[in-house]
Amino acid sequence: MDTHDHPPPHHATLFLDTPQMIEWVQRVGLRHCWTELAAYLRADFARWPVFHKSARMAHHAPQGVLELMPVADETLYSVKYVNGHPGNPALGLPTVMALGLLADVHTGRPLLLCEMTLLTALRTAAVSALAAQVLARPNSRVMALIGNGAQSEFQALAFQHLVGIDTLRVFDTDASASQKLFDNLQGSGLHITVCASAGEAMEHADIVTTATAHATRAAWLQPDWLRPGMHLNAIGGDSPGKTELPPAVLQRARVFVEYPPQTRAEGDIQQLPPEFAVTALWQVLQGRHPGRHSRDDITVFDSVGFALEDFSALRLVHDSARRLSMGTWVQLLPTTAPKNLFGALRTEGHHAPF
Amino acid sequence: MDTHDHPPPHHATLFLDTPQMIEWVQRVGLRHCWTELAAYLRADFARWPVFHKSARMAHHAPQGVLELMPVADETLYSVKYVNGHPGNPALGLPTVMALGLLADVHTGRPLLLCEMTLLTALRTAAVSALAAQVLARPNSRVMALIGNGAQSEFQALAFQHLVGIDTLRVFDTDASASQKLFDNLQGSGLHITVCASAGEAMEHADIVTTATAHATRAAWLQPDWLRPGMHLNAIGGDSPGKTELPPAVLQRARVFVEYPPQTRAEGDIQQLPPEFAVTALWQVLQGRHPGRHSRDDITVFDSVGFALEDFSALRLVHDSARRLSMGTWVQLLPTTAPKNLFGALRTEGHHAPF
Repeated sequence: MDTHDHPPPHHATLFLDTPQMIEWVQRVGLRHCWTELAAYLRADFARWPVFHKSARMAHHAPQGVLELMPVADETLYSVKYVNGHPGNPALGLPTVMALGLLADVHTGRPLLLCEMTLLTALRTAAVSALAAQVLARPNSRVMALIGNGAQSEFQALAFQHLVGIDTLRVFDTDASASQKLFDNLQGSGLHITVCASAGEAMEHADIVTTATAHATRAAWLQPDWLRPGMHLNAIGGDSPGKTELPPAVLQRARVFVEYPPQTRAEGDIQQLPPEFAVTALWQVLQGRHPGRHSRDDITVFDSVGFALEDFSALRLVHDSARRLSMGTWVQLLPTTAPKNLFGALRTEGHHAPF
Repeated sequence: MDTHDHPPPHHATLFLDTPQMIEWVQRVGLRHCWTELAAYLRADFARWPVFHKSARMAHHAPQGVLELMPVADETLYSVKYVNGHPGNPALGLPTVMALGLLADVHTGRPLLLCEMTLLTALRTAAVSALAAQVLARPNSRVMALIGNGAQSEFQALAFQHLVGIDTLRVFDTDASASQKLFDNLQGSGLHITVCASAGEAMEHADIVTTATAHATRAAWLQPDWLRPGMHLNAIGGDSPGKTELPPAVLQRARVFVEYPPQTRAEGDIQQLPPEFAVTALWQVLQGRHPGRHSRDDITVFDSVGFALEDFSALRLVHDSARRLSMGTWVQLLPTTAPKNLFGALRTEGHHAPF
């Protein structure tokens, strides 16, 4: 299957930097990305119990958080390094940046090393859309999109392709963010209305996606804006002290989460007592739980992002990039005899550098 | 200072693969490596209390372990991915392989991404030698080296340069490993005797370095081989169930460790009750603790490897490779406006790939 100029030796690792990841998305196309991501995610969520899971390991600094998100099954191990620094845009850097590693559990050998800023945006939107497939009312067509930052276009397009959304009602406290979204989605086929308030955006919405980025307990969403049957896709509340939905909204809804131990610390439900009932998304995807019980239920996907989703995304990129001969092979391991690491320093033309 | 062909843009990350790391060691020379590593390690150990420390995060699989070792101070964050798979040599792969990342705490931006298999061997040996500088008797000249695998030559050379060892007495259950060490160190200036047993190697030794790799509770070291004043540098016992020194040896000695919470789980002292008294190495390096109390004390450095040592090593490579214009700059971040991540998909000549 491998047609790289330099076929991968035993010791090589596939590497995709940001330009190569962009090239991969352009080559396969976003529609194919969503379809494939959804398939990989569904396959991995279906095997949920076999994964070795843990809450992410966070280092909290005054300026932001630096996190590691590892997970493994019996054959593959993945870890994502990801930061969250609200002050970064003022420095010309993204708020969230990420790197991913996929390794072979049987040997520890690194198989794939790649950028994950773009890949995280893709997988987050795919997970949201997958959750909406099983939680939102069938035939949902109108989505309110509150918060029009880096994640917003990805959400819009994943919901268009995977859920059938054809109309967006968008709002951001920064009007230029909504304009950017509007411009970026020209040609997508989505009907987009820029609204003057969050309340206006939520009028007529079947699904409400909130992707705001303020590191505070936000309270802009008024409970009386909710209508029976709405599905709320809450992306932005994803770390201690950072929430989007008021407790009263959560208490009126059926709440679905990725990995309960992590979401209780990081998600919107951090505002509620630990005994507040939630359902794990994988159980709904697997048909073990019905999701919404009636057309009039309000459902909430309290998304914080879980390592298994990165695992699926890295697995897809590894398979797809190899098939398409994309990325480059880098040598991150010594090629000397295993017990002769020192011999690596004696390269041709060099004596040992005593 | 930077004279790379492509000076680092705001978004670039310095990258060193294995051939580039080898080139770096050859360029600076091993003697300079030891000196610089020792200086960086001393500087960081001196600031021990300011670091955010944690025991490593391990995933245990039947074939081996995959670990993450993060640590941070107020400006830099480092993490090492490292495996330990005793069956790897039979597959032509090293037992231990590693990758390292150094990032800016203020923004989360990745500064350096590099191979760490070779760099870990260098830093492990430097830490051992640093510990011996303050724990072994002055004027130690003869070192027994039990276990002549991948780590052994690095230990030998670090002790030659940093401690003043001039004579090695080496033993391995695999005679070809000792022969490999003997061959690799020709020209180093070390006097090397290959011994027929561990006990013979320990005769006349001032320092005993044990770097064996069996994943079991080993018991080859007989307590009556110990002589007053010996310093034991125990490298190989570094994970639950994997120890080198019998409890009776530890109980006769003063034991020094890197990070007590991690060593009590992973080091040779895992065999002893949690109240067994140990001293943290940084306190001796800082002059807060005397190390050995008398010429006749037996001292043990129960080394398991700690994240701070990788932090120092990555910091050195980052500084030195930049100064020498080594490595390559890779783009692991999007360069679009921070809130316009989607715009990264609209590269010149490409429409958005809807």
